[in-house]
Amino acid sequence: MSVFNYKMRVYYGETDKMSVAYYANYFVWYERARTEFLRKCGFPYFEIEEKGLFLPVVHAACKYISSVTYDDVICIETWISRLEGARVKFKYSVRKEDGSLVSTGETFHGFVDRQGKPCRLQKDVKIFIESVVESDREIPAK
Amino acid sequence: MSVFNYKMRVYYGETDKMSVAYYANYFVWYERARTEFLRKCGFPYFEIEEKGLFLPVVHAACKYISSVTYDDVICIETWISRLEGARVKFKYSVRKEDGSLVSTGETFHGFVDRQGKPCRLQKDVKIFIESVVESDREIPAK
Amino acid sequence: MSVFNYKMRVYYGETDKMSVAYYANYFVWYERARTEFLRKCGFPYFEIEEKGLFLPVVHAACKYISSVTYDDVICIETWISRLEGARVKFKYSVRKEDGSLVSTGETFHGFVDRQGKPCRLQKDVKIFIESVVESDREIPAK
Amino acid sequence: MSVFNYKMRVYYGETDKMSVAYYANYFVWYERARTEFLRKCGFPYFEIEEKGLFLPVVHAACKYISSVTYDDVICIETWISRLEGARVKFKYSVRKEDGSLVSTGETFHGFVDRQGKPCRLQKDVKIFIESVVESDREIPAK
Repeated sequence: MSVFNYKMRVYYGETDKMSVAYYANYFVWYERARTEFLRKCGFPYFEIEEKGLFLPVVHAACKYISSVTYDDVICIETWISRLEGARVKFKYSVRKEDGSLVSTGETFHGFVDRQGKPCRLQKDVKIFIESVVESDREIPAK
Repeated sequence: MSVFNYKMRVYYGETDKMSVAYYANYFVWYERARTEFLRKCGFPYFEIEEKGLFLPVVHAACKYISSVTYDDVICIETWISRLEGARVKFKYSVRKEDGSLVSTGETFHGFVDRQGKPCRLQKDVKIFIESVVESDREIPAK
Repeated sequence: MSVFNYKMRVYYGETDKMSVAYYANYFVWYERARTEFLRKCGFPYFEIEEKGLFLPVVHAACKYISSVTYDDVICIETWISRLEGARVKFKYSVRKEDGSLVSTGETFHGFVDRQGKPCRLQKDVKIFIESVVESDREIPAK
Repeated sequence: MSVFNYKMRVYYGETDKMSVAYYANYFVWYERARTEFLRKCGFPYFEIEEKGLFLPVVHAACKYISSVTYDDVICIETWISRLEGARVKFKYSVRKEDGSLVSTGETFHGFVDRQGKPCRLQKDVKIFIESVVESDREIPAK
Protein backbone atom coordinates (compact mmCIF):
# COMPACT_ATOMS: atom_id res chain seq x y z
CA MET A 1 0.00 0.00 0.00
CA SER A 2 1.91 3.00 -1.28
CA VAL A 3 -0.20 5.74 0.21
CA PHE A 4 1.16 7.86 3.00
CA ASN A 5 -0.87 9.82 5.51
CA TYR A 6 0.96 13.00 6.56
CA LYS A 7 -0.47 14.54 9.71
CA MET A 8 0.13 18.18 10.59
CA ARG A 9 -1.31 21.15 12.43
CA VAL A 10 -2.27 24.57 11.05
CA TYR A 11 -0.57 27.51 12.78
CA TYR A 12 -1.43 31.19 13.20
CA GLY A 13 0.80 32.54 10.47
CA GLU A 14 -0.88 30.26 7.94
CA THR A 15 -4.29 31.86 8.44
CA ASP A 16 -5.41 35.09 6.81
CA LYS A 17 -7.94 37.76 7.77
CA MET A 18 -10.80 35.53 6.57
CA SER A 19 -9.72 33.39 9.59
CA VAL A 20 -8.91 30.37 7.42
CA ALA A 21 -5.67 28.98 6.00
CA TYR A 22 -4.44 31.04 3.04
CA TYR A 23 -4.76 29.20 -0.26
CA ALA A 24 -1.07 29.20 -1.25
CA ASN A 25 -0.15 27.30 1.93
CA TYR A 26 -1.75 24.10 0.62
CA PHE A 27 1.11 23.82 -1.87
CA VAL A 28 3.63 24.22 0.95
CA TRP A 29 1.87 21.42 2.82
CA TYR A 30 1.83 19.23 -0.30
CA GLU A 31 5.61 19.57 -0.45
CA ARG A 32 5.96 18.42 3.15
CA ALA A 33 3.61 15.51 2.48
CA ARG A 34 5.48 14.28 -0.61
CA THR A 35 8.82 14.64 1.17
CA GLU A 36 7.60 12.39 3.98
CA PHE A 37 5.98 10.02 1.45
CA LEU A 38 9.31 9.52 -0.31
CA ARG A 39 11.14 9.03 2.98
CA LYS A 40 8.53 6.47 4.08
CA CYS A 41 9.01 4.61 0.78
CA GLY A 42 12.71 4.35 1.58
CA PHE A 43 13.81 6.83 -1.08
CA PRO A 44 14.20 10.23 0.62
CA TYR A 45 14.29 13.20 -1.73
CA PHE A 46 17.74 14.35 -0.55
CA GLU A 47 19.12 11.05 -1.89
CA ILE A 48 17.56 11.80 -5.27
CA GLU A 49 19.37 15.17 -5.26
CA GLU A 50 22.60 13.47 -4.20
CA LYS A 51 22.34 11.46 -7.42
CA GLY A 52 22.28 14.74 -9.34
CA LEU A 53 18.54 14.58 -10.06
CA PHE A 54 16.08 17.33 -9.19
CA LEU A 55 12.30 17.29 -9.30
CA PRO A 56 10.93 20.78 -10.02
CA VAL A 57 7.18 21.18 -10.30
CA VAL A 58 5.89 21.67 -13.85
CA HIS A 59 2.21 21.87 -12.97
CA ALA A 60 0.31 22.21 -9.70
CA ALA A 61 -3.40 22.37 -8.92
CA CYS A 62 -5.59 22.45 -5.84
CA LYS A 63 -9.33 22.22 -5.32
CA TYR A 64 -10.57 23.89 -2.13
CA ILE A 65 -13.62 22.05 -0.79
CA SER A 66 -13.87 23.26 2.78
CA SER A 67 -11.59 25.42 4.90
CA VAL A 68 -9.30 24.80 7.82
CA THR A 69 -8.30 27.25 10.50
CA TYR A 70 -5.85 27.85 13.34
CA ASP A 71 -5.01 24.78 15.42
CA ASP A 72 -6.82 22.34 13.12
CA VAL A 73 -5.10 19.01 12.64
CA ILE A 74 -5.19 17.73 9.07
CA CYS A 75 -4.11 14.55 7.32
CA ILE A 76 -2.76 14.60 3.79
CA GLU A 77 -3.05 11.30 1.93
CA THR A 78 -0.27 11.28 -0.63
CA TRP A 79 0.54 8.93 -3.46
CA ILE A 80 2.16 8.77 -6.89
CA SER A 81 -0.51 8.35 -9.53
CA ARG A 82 1.58 8.26 -12.69
CA LEU A 83 5.07 7.87 -14.12
CA GLU A 84 5.26 9.11 -17.70
CA GLY A 85 8.74 9.15 -19.20
CA ALA A 86 10.72 11.34 -16.83
CA ARG A 87 7.63 12.93 -15.31
CA VAL A 88 5.90 11.87 -12.16
CA LYS A 89 2.53 12.92 -10.73
CA PHE A 90 1.73 13.13 -7.04
CA LYS A 91 -1.84 13.32 -5.75
CA TYR A 92 -3.02 14.64 -2.41
CA SER A 93 -6.24 14.53 -0.48
CA VAL A 94 -6.51 16.62 2.68
CA ARG A 95 -8.92 15.67 5.47
CA LYS A 96 -9.80 16.98 8.89
CA GLU A 97 -9.59 14.71 11.89
CA ASP A 98 -13.30 13.88 11.51
CA GLY A 99 -12.56 12.54 8.01
CA SER A 100 -14.27 15.33 6.09
CA LEU A 101 -12.58 16.29 2.84
CA VAL A 102 -10.86 19.70 2.83
CA SER A 103 -8.97 19.73 -0.43
CA THR A 104 -7.65 17.61 -3.26
CA GLY A 105 -4.63 18.46 -5.35
CA GLU A 106 -1.88 17.27 -7.60
CA THR A 107 1.64 18.23 -8.56
CA PHE A 108 3.40 17.10 -11.71
CA HIS A 109 7.20 17.02 -11.66
CA GLY A 110 9.87 16.58 -14.28
CA PHE A 111 13.27 15.09 -13.54
CA VAL A 112 16.09 17.46 -14.46
CA ASP A 113 19.85 17.44 -13.98
CA ARG A 114 22.02 20.00 -12.17
CA GLN A 115 21.84 22.31 -15.18
CA GLY A 116 18.05 22.20 -15.15
CA LYS A 117 17.91 20.12 -18.34
CA PRO A 118 15.28 17.38 -18.53
CA CYS A 119 16.95 14.01 -18.18
CA ARG A 120 16.24 10.28 -18.19
CA LEU A 121 15.55 8.49 -14.98
CA GLN A 122 18.34 6.45 -13.51
CA LYS A 123 17.34 2.79 -13.45
CA ASP A 124 17.04 2.44 -9.68
CA VAL A 125 14.90 5.58 -9.46
CA LYS A 126 12.64 4.26 -12.23
CA ILE A 127 12.26 0.86 -10.58
CA PHE A 128 11.52 2.50 -7.26
CA ILE A 129 8.80 4.76 -8.66
CA GLU A 130 7.20 1.98 -10.70
CA SER A 131 7.00 -0.07 -7.52
CA VAL A 132 4.96 2.58 -5.70
CA VAL A 133 2.69 3.97 -8.44
CA GLU A 134 -0.95 3.71 -7.47
CA SER A 135 -2.47 4.34 -10.88
CA ASP A 136 -5.93 3.05 -10.04
CA ARG A 137 -6.41 4.90 -6.82
CA GLU A 138 -9.35 7.28 -6.77
CA ILE A 139 -9.87 9.98 -4.21
CA PRO A 140 -12.48 8.47 -1.93
CA ALA A 141 -15.78 10.32 -1.75
CA LYS A 142 -16.39 12.66 1.11
CA MET B 1 -8.93 46.53 -22.60
CA SER B 2 -9.41 44.87 -19.24
CA VAL B 3 -6.02 43.30 -18.85
CA PHE B 4 -3.66 44.52 -16.18
CA ASN B 5 0.08 44.13 -16.14
CA TYR B 6 1.38 43.75 -12.59
CA LYS B 7 5.12 44.30 -12.33
CA MET B 8 7.14 43.02 -9.39
CA ARG B 9 10.57 41.83 -8.32
CA VAL B 10 11.56 38.45 -6.87
CA TYR B 11 13.35 38.64 -3.50
CA TYR B 12 15.76 36.36 -1.66
CA GLY B 13 13.24 34.75 0.67
CA GLU B 14 11.17 33.66 -2.33
CA THR B 15 13.95 31.49 -3.74
CA ASP B 16 14.78 27.99 -2.56
CA LYS B 17 17.95 25.91 -2.56
CA MET B 18 17.45 25.13 -6.26
CA SER B 19 18.18 28.90 -6.65
CA VAL B 20 14.80 29.61 -8.25
CA ALA B 21 11.53 30.95 -6.90
CA TYR B 22 9.65 28.31 -4.87
CA TYR B 23 6.53 27.07 -6.63
CA ALA B 24 3.97 28.08 -3.98
CA ASN B 25 5.00 31.73 -4.29
CA TYR B 26 3.38 32.02 -7.71
CA PHE B 27 -0.01 31.82 -6.01
CA VAL B 28 0.99 34.61 -3.63
CA TRP B 29 2.00 36.72 -6.64
CA TYR B 30 -1.30 35.91 -8.40
CA GLU B 31 -3.13 37.32 -5.38
CA ARG B 32 -1.15 40.55 -5.57
CA ALA B 33 -1.80 40.77 -9.32
CA ARG B 34 -5.56 40.28 -9.04
CA THR B 35 -5.75 42.76 -6.15
CA GLU B 36 -4.10 45.41 -8.31
CA PHE B 37 -6.21 44.39 -11.31
CA LEU B 38 -9.41 45.02 -9.34
CA ARG B 39 -8.09 48.34 -8.01
CA LYS B 40 -7.16 49.41 -11.55
CA CYS B 41 -10.67 48.53 -12.73
CA GLY B 42 -12.05 50.88 -10.08
CA PHE B 43 -13.43 48.15 -7.85
CA PRO B 44 -10.82 47.44 -5.15
CA TYR B 45 -11.27 44.16 -3.31
CA PHE B 46 -11.58 45.83 0.11
CA GLU B 47 -14.74 47.51 -1.18
CA ILE B 48 -16.14 44.12 -2.15
CA GLU B 49 -15.50 42.95 1.43
CA GLU B 50 -17.09 46.13 2.79
CA LYS B 51 -20.27 45.06 0.99
CA GLY B 52 -20.16 41.80 2.96
CA LEU B 53 -18.92 39.73 0.01
CA PHE B 54 -15.80 37.56 0.10
CA LEU B 55 -14.03 35.79 -2.74
CA PRO B 56 -12.31 32.63 -1.48
CA VAL B 57 -10.45 30.52 -4.01
CA VAL B 58 -12.23 27.28 -4.95
CA HIS B 59 -9.66 26.09 -7.47
CA ALA B 60 -6.14 27.19 -8.37
CA ALA B 61 -3.66 25.93 -10.93
CA CYS B 62 -0.26 26.95 -12.22
CA LYS B 63 1.88 25.75 -15.10
CA TYR B 64 5.62 26.31 -14.64
CA ILE B 65 7.30 26.91 -17.99
CA SER B 66 10.63 28.45 -17.06
CA SER B 67 12.04 29.61 -13.75
CA VAL B 68 12.79 32.98 -12.18
CA THR B 69 15.37 33.76 -9.59
CA TYR B 70 16.52 36.42 -7.14
CA ASP B 71 16.26 39.99 -8.38
CA ASP B 72 14.36 39.09 -11.55
CA VAL B 73 11.63 41.51 -12.53
CA ILE B 74 8.46 39.86 -13.77
CA CYS B 75 5.18 41.06 -15.24
CA ILE B 76 1.92 39.29 -14.51
CA GLU B 77 -0.81 39.87 -17.08
CA THR B 78 -4.09 39.44 -15.27
CA TRP B 79 -7.67 39.31 -16.50
CA ILE B 80 -11.08 37.85 -15.70
CA SER B 81 -11.90 35.12 -18.19
CA ARG B 82 -15.33 34.03 -16.97
CA LEU B 83 -18.29 34.89 -14.78
CA GLU B 84 -20.46 31.86 -14.13
CA GLY B 85 -23.29 32.43 -11.68
CA ALA B 86 -21.53 33.58 -8.53
CA ARG B 87 -18.16 32.25 -9.62
CA VAL B 88 -15.43 34.20 -11.32
CA LYS B 89 -12.23 33.01 -12.98
CA PHE B 90 -8.99 34.97 -13.12
CA LYS B 91 -6.18 34.10 -15.52
CA TYR B 92 -2.53 35.03 -15.23
CA SER B 93 0.45 34.91 -17.49
CA VAL B 94 3.88 35.66 -16.05
CA ARG B 95 6.70 36.97 -18.19
CA LYS B 96 10.27 38.09 -17.68
CA GLU B 97 11.35 41.54 -18.79
CA ASP B 98 12.54 40.08 -22.12
CA GLY B 99 8.99 38.89 -22.78
CA SER B 100 9.68 35.16 -22.33
CA LEU B 101 6.87 33.20 -20.72
CA VAL B 102 7.55 31.96 -17.19
CA SER B 103 4.21 30.62 -16.07
CA THR B 104 0.48 30.60 -16.75
CA GLY B 105 -2.18 30.07 -14.14
CA GLU B 106 -5.75 30.52 -13.08
CA THR B 107 -7.76 30.91 -9.92
CA PHE B 108 -11.48 30.27 -9.66
CA HIS B 109 -13.37 32.08 -6.89
CA GLY B 110 -16.85 31.81 -5.44
CA PHE B 111 -18.66 34.72 -3.84
CA VAL B 112 -19.67 33.98 -0.25
CA ASP B 113 -21.20 36.02 2.57
CA ARG B 114 -19.76 36.70 6.02
CA GLN B 115 -20.84 33.24 7.17
CA GLY B 116 -18.99 31.60 4.29
CA LYS B 117 -22.24 30.64 2.52
CA PRO B 118 -22.31 30.95 -1.27
CA CYS B 119 -24.40 33.94 -2.24
CA ARG B 120 -25.74 35.80 -5.23
CA LEU B 121 -23.84 38.69 -6.66
CA GLN B 122 -25.06 42.15 -5.83
CA LYS B 123 -26.19 43.91 -8.99
CA ASP B 124 -23.37 46.48 -9.14
CA VAL B 125 -20.73 43.79 -8.61
CA LYS B 126 -22.28 41.70 -11.40
CA ILE B 127 -22.41 44.66 -13.81
CA PHE B 128 -18.82 45.55 -12.98
CA ILE B 129 -17.49 42.05 -13.61
CA GLU B 130 -19.47 41.61 -16.82
CA SER B 131 -17.95 44.85 -18.06
CA VAL B 132 -14.39 43.57 -17.65
CA VAL B 133 -14.67 39.89 -18.64
CA GLU B 134 -12.25 39.03 -21.43
CA SER B 135 -13.74 35.70 -22.42
CA ASP B 136 -11.98 35.46 -25.77
CA ARG B 137 -8.51 36.27 -24.60
CA GLU B 138 -5.97 33.55 -25.17
CA ILE B 139 -2.59 33.42 -23.53
CA PRO B 140 -0.28 34.61 -26.30
CA ALA B 141 2.36 32.15 -27.40
CA LYS B 142 5.86 32.49 -26.10
CA MET C 1 9.84 21.57 34.47
CA SER C 2 8.17 24.16 32.30
CA VAL C 3 10.38 23.86 29.28
CA PHE C 4 9.03 22.30 26.12
CA ASN C 5 11.07 20.77 23.35
CA TYR C 6 9.37 21.27 19.98
CA LYS C 7 10.75 19.01 17.28
CA MET C 8 10.30 19.78 13.59
CA ARG C 9 11.82 19.31 10.17
CA VAL C 10 12.98 21.96 7.69
CA TYR C 11 11.37 21.72 4.23
CA TYR C 12 12.40 22.85 0.77
CA GLY C 13 10.30 25.99 0.63
CA GLU C 14 11.95 27.24 3.82
CA THR C 15 15.40 27.32 2.26
CA ASP C 16 16.73 30.10 0.06
CA LYS C 17 19.34 30.25 -2.68
CA MET C 18 22.11 30.27 -0.07
CA SER C 19 20.87 26.67 0.57
CA VAL C 20 19.98 27.39 4.18
CA ALA C 21 16.73 28.23 5.95
CA TYR C 22 15.68 31.84 5.32
CA TYR C 23 16.02 34.04 8.40
CA ALA C 24 12.35 35.09 8.71
CA ASN C 25 11.25 31.45 9.06
CA TYR C 26 12.74 31.22 12.54
CA PHE C 27 9.96 33.49 13.78
CA VAL C 28 7.37 31.21 12.15
CA TRP C 29 8.95 28.25 13.93
CA TYR C 30 8.98 30.15 17.24
CA GLU C 31 5.22 30.59 16.89
CA ARG C 32 4.72 26.87 16.38
CA ALA C 33 6.95 26.12 19.36
CA ARG C 34 5.14 28.48 21.75
CA THR C 35 1.75 27.18 20.56
CA GLU C 36 2.79 23.63 21.46
CA PHE C 37 4.38 24.83 24.69
CA LEU C 38 1.08 26.38 25.81
CA ARG C 39 -0.87 23.26 24.79
CA LYS C 40 1.57 21.06 26.71
CA CYS C 41 1.11 23.27 29.78
CA GLY C 42 -2.64 22.63 29.57
CA PHE C 43 -3.54 26.14 28.43
CA PRO C 44 -3.81 26.05 24.61
CA TYR C 45 -3.71 29.45 22.93
CA PHE C 46 -7.12 29.01 21.28
CA GLU C 47 -8.61 28.88 24.80
CA ILE C 48 -6.93 32.19 25.62
CA GLU C 49 -8.57 33.69 22.51
CA GLU C 50 -11.92 32.17 23.50
CA LYS C 51 -11.66 34.21 26.70
CA GLY C 52 -11.39 37.33 24.55
CA LEU C 53 -7.65 37.74 25.12
CA PHE C 54 -5.07 38.01 22.34
CA LEU C 55 -1.29 37.92 22.53
CA PRO C 56 0.25 40.00 19.72
CA VAL C 57 4.02 40.24 19.57
CA VAL C 58 5.43 43.60 20.68
CA HIS C 59 9.08 42.73 20.23
CA ALA C 60 10.91 39.83 18.59
CA ALA C 61 14.59 39.02 18.21
CA CYS C 62 16.67 36.18 16.89
CA LYS C 63 20.39 35.44 17.00
CA TYR C 64 21.63 33.21 14.18
CA ILE C 65 24.55 31.09 15.34
CA SER C 66 24.76 28.38 12.71
CA SER C 67 22.51 27.47 9.80
CA VAL C 68 20.09 24.67 9.04
CA THR C 69 19.13 23.34 5.67
CA TYR C 70 16.64 21.12 3.86
CA ASP C 71 15.61 17.97 5.71
CA ASP C 72 17.37 18.93 8.95
CA VAL C 73 15.51 18.05 12.12
CA ILE C 74 15.64 20.71 14.80
CA CYS C 75 14.46 20.99 18.39
CA ILE C 76 13.22 24.27 19.81
CA GLU C 77 13.41 24.54 23.58
CA THR C 78 10.71 26.97 24.63
CA TRP C 79 9.88 28.56 27.94
CA ILE C 80 8.36 31.67 29.49
CA SER C 81 11.07 33.77 31.07
CA ARG C 82 9.06 36.69 32.45
CA LEU C 83 5.61 37.97 33.30
CA GLU C 84 5.58 41.72 33.68
CA GLY C 85 2.16 43.25 34.21
CA ALA C 86 0.22 42.14 31.15
CA ARG C 87 3.32 41.31 29.16
CA VAL C 88 4.91 37.93 28.82
CA LYS C 89 8.27 36.94 27.36
CA PHE C 90 9.00 33.64 25.61
CA LYS C 91 12.52 32.40 25.01
CA TYR C 92 13.68 29.87 22.44
CA SER C 93 16.81 27.95 21.79
CA VAL C 94 17.10 25.96 18.57
CA ARG C 95 19.38 22.94 18.30
CA LYS C 96 20.21 20.36 15.69
CA GLU C 97 19.81 16.69 16.46
CA ASP C 98 23.50 16.51 17.48
CA GLY C 99 22.79 19.13 20.16
CA SER C 100 24.68 21.98 18.49
CA LEU C 101 23.14 25.40 18.96
CA VAL C 102 21.59 26.94 15.84
CA SER C 103 19.78 29.98 17.15
CA THR C 104 18.44 31.70 20.23
CA GLY C 105 15.53 34.08 20.27
CA GLU C 106 12.78 35.74 22.22
CA THR C 107 9.35 37.17 21.65
CA PHE C 108 7.65 39.63 23.97
CA HIS C 109 3.84 39.70 23.92
CA GLY C 110 1.21 42.02 25.35
CA PHE C 111 -2.28 40.87 26.28
CA VAL C 112 -4.95 42.84 24.44
CA ASP C 113 -8.70 42.57 24.15
CA ARG C 114 -10.80 42.10 21.01
CA GLN C 115 -10.43 45.80 20.20
CA GLY C 116 -6.64 45.54 20.39
CA LYS C 117 -6.52 47.54 23.67
CA PRO C 118 -4.01 46.44 26.29
CA CYS C 119 -5.86 44.77 29.14
CA ARG C 120 -5.33 43.17 32.52
CA LEU C 121 -4.81 39.48 32.80
CA GLN C 122 -7.71 37.41 33.94
CA LYS C 123 -6.90 35.75 37.25
CA ASP C 124 -6.70 32.17 35.96
CA VAL C 125 -4.43 33.21 33.09
CA LYS C 126 -2.17 35.06 35.54
CA ILE C 127 -1.99 32.11 37.91
CA PHE C 128 -1.25 29.77 35.03
CA ILE C 129 1.59 31.88 33.67
CA GLU C 130 3.12 32.46 37.11
CA SER C 131 3.14 28.71 37.60
CA VAL C 132 5.25 28.10 34.50
CA VAL C 133 7.65 31.07 34.47
CA GLU C 134 11.27 29.90 34.40
CA SER C 135 12.89 33.20 35.31
CA ASP C 136 16.26 31.73 36.23
CA ARG C 137 16.75 29.58 33.19
CA GLU C 138 19.78 30.45 31.11
CA ILE C 139 20.36 29.24 27.58
CA PRO C 140 22.88 26.48 28.11
CA ALA C 141 26.14 26.94 26.25
CA LYS C 142 26.79 24.49 23.56
CA MET D 1 21.63 61.38 2.44
CA SER D 2 21.93 57.64 2.43
CA VAL D 3 18.46 56.77 3.60
CA PHE D 4 16.09 54.99 1.28
CA ASN D 5 12.33 54.96 1.53
CA TYR D 6 10.91 51.65 0.30
CA LYS D 7 7.19 51.82 -0.41
CA MET D 8 5.03 48.70 -0.56
CA ARG D 9 1.54 47.37 -0.04
CA VAL D 10 0.33 44.69 2.38
CA TYR D 11 -1.53 41.79 0.72
CA TYR D 12 -4.10 39.26 1.93
CA GLY D 13 -1.73 36.38 2.47
CA GLU D 14 0.38 38.52 4.79
CA THR D 15 -2.47 39.01 7.26
CA ASP D 16 -3.48 36.48 9.90
CA LYS D 17 -6.73 35.75 11.70
CA MET D 18 -6.18 38.74 13.99
CA SER D 19 -6.72 40.72 10.71
CA VAL D 20 -3.28 42.30 10.86
CA ALA D 21 0.03 41.52 9.17
CA TYR D 22 1.72 38.47 10.74
CA TYR D 23 4.83 39.39 12.72
CA ALA D 24 7.36 37.32 10.74
CA ASN D 25 6.50 39.19 7.55
CA TYR D 26 8.24 42.34 8.78
CA PHE D 27 11.57 40.57 8.34
CA VAL D 28 10.61 39.64 4.78
CA TRP D 29 9.80 43.31 4.13
CA TYR D 30 13.10 44.41 5.69
CA GLU D 31 14.90 42.19 3.18
CA ARG D 32 13.09 43.82 0.29
CA ALA D 33 13.85 47.27 1.69
CA ARG D 34 17.59 46.63 2.13
CA THR D 35 17.80 45.08 -1.34
CA GLU D 36 16.34 48.23 -2.86
CA PHE D 37 18.49 50.41 -0.60
CA LEU D 38 21.66 48.74 -1.93
CA ARG D 39 20.47 49.01 -5.52
CA LYS D 40 19.67 52.71 -5.01
CA CYS D 41 23.17 53.24 -3.61
CA GLY D 42 24.57 51.79 -6.83
CA PHE D 43 25.77 48.54 -5.26
CA PRO D 44 23.05 45.92 -5.85
CA TYR D 45 23.28 42.84 -3.66
CA PHE D 46 23.56 40.45 -6.61
CA GLU D 47 26.85 42.18 -7.50
CA ILE D 48 28.11 41.54 -3.98
CA GLU D 49 27.32 37.83 -4.46
CA GLU D 50 29.00 37.89 -7.86
CA LYS D 51 32.18 38.91 -6.04
CA GLY D 52 31.87 35.75 -3.93
CA LEU D 53 30.62 37.60 -0.85
CA PHE D 54 27.41 36.75 1.00
CA LEU D 55 25.62 38.65 3.73
CA PRO D 56 23.73 36.25 6.02
CA VAL D 57 21.86 37.73 8.97
CA VAL D 58 23.51 37.13 12.34
CA HIS D 59 20.96 39.01 14.42
CA ALA D 60 17.52 40.44 13.71
CA ALA D 61 15.06 42.34 15.85
CA CYS D 62 11.76 44.09 15.38
CA LYS D 63 9.65 46.28 17.64
CA TYR D 64 5.93 46.27 16.82
CA ILE D 65 4.39 49.64 17.66
CA SER D 66 1.11 49.60 15.77
CA SER D 67 -0.34 47.16 13.27
CA VAL D 68 -0.98 47.22 9.54
CA THR D 69 -3.61 45.32 7.66
CA TYR D 70 -4.71 44.29 4.17
CA ASP D 71 -4.24 46.90 1.48
CA ASP D 72 -2.29 49.32 3.70
CA VAL D 73 0.57 51.11 2.01
CA ILE D 74 3.71 51.38 4.12
CA CYS D 75 7.07 53.07 3.75
CA ILE D 76 10.23 51.51 5.14
CA GLU D 77 13.05 53.96 5.80
CA THR D 78 16.25 51.99 5.50
CA TRP D 79 19.85 52.87 6.24
CA ILE D 80 23.16 51.37 7.33
CA SER D 81 23.94 52.43 10.86
CA ARG D 82 27.27 50.72 11.44
CA LEU D 83 30.19 48.96 9.83
CA GLU D 84 32.20 46.98 12.35
CA GLY D 85 34.96 44.87 10.89
CA ALA D 86 33.17 42.60 8.44
CA ARG D 87 29.79 43.18 10.01
CA VAL D 88 27.20 45.66 8.89
CA LYS D 89 24.01 46.81 10.59
CA PHE D 90 20.86 47.92 8.77
CA LYS D 91 18.09 49.84 10.49
CA TYR D 92 14.49 50.14 9.44
CA SER D 93 11.56 52.30 10.43
CA VAL D 94 8.15 51.44 9.03
CA ARG D 95 5.45 54.08 8.67
CA LYS D 96 1.92 54.25 7.34
CA GLU D 97 1.04 56.75 4.66
CA ASP D 98 -0.12 59.21 7.37
CA GLY D 99 3.41 59.12 8.81
CA SER D 100 2.53 57.19 11.97
CA LEU D 101 5.20 54.78 13.15
CA VAL D 102 4.35 51.08 12.75
CA SER D 103 7.59 49.34 13.57
CA THR D 104 11.32 49.77 13.99
CA GLY D 105 13.87 47.08 13.44
CA GLU D 106 17.42 46.14 12.69
CA THR D 107 19.36 43.36 11.05
CA PHE D 108 23.04 42.68 11.62
CA HIS D 109 24.93 40.87 8.85
CA GLY D 110 28.33 39.27 8.58
CA PHE D 111 30.23 38.98 5.32
CA VAL D 112 31.08 35.37 4.50
CA ASP D 113 32.62 33.63 1.50
CA ARG D 114 31.13 30.86 -0.62
CA GLN D 115 32.00 28.30 2.04
CA GLY D 116 30.15 30.28 4.68
CA LYS D 117 33.41 31.33 6.40
CA PRO D 118 33.61 34.89 7.76
CA CYS D 119 35.88 36.93 5.53
CA ARG D 120 37.41 40.38 5.15
CA LEU D 121 35.68 42.98 3.09
CA GLN D 122 37.04 43.63 -0.34
CA LYS D 123 38.32 47.19 -0.57
CA ASP D 124 35.64 48.53 -2.93
CA VAL D 125 32.87 47.05 -0.80
CA LYS D 126 34.38 48.61 2.32
CA ILE D 127 34.71 52.02 0.69
CA PHE D 128 31.17 51.82 -0.58
CA ILE D 129 29.70 50.96 2.82
CA GLU D 130 31.75 53.60 4.65
CA SER D 131 30.41 56.14 2.20
CA VAL D 132 26.79 55.41 3.08
CA VAL D 133 26.92 54.73 6.83
CA GLU D 134 24.56 57.00 8.74
CA SER D 135 25.91 56.42 12.21
CA ASP D 136 24.24 59.43 13.81
CA ARG D 137 20.79 58.88 12.47
CA GLU D 138 18.13 58.37 15.11
CA ILE D 139 14.70 56.96 14.43
CA PRO D 140 12.52 60.06 14.43
CA ALA D 141 9.83 60.16 17.08
CA LYS D 142 6.30 59.27 16.13
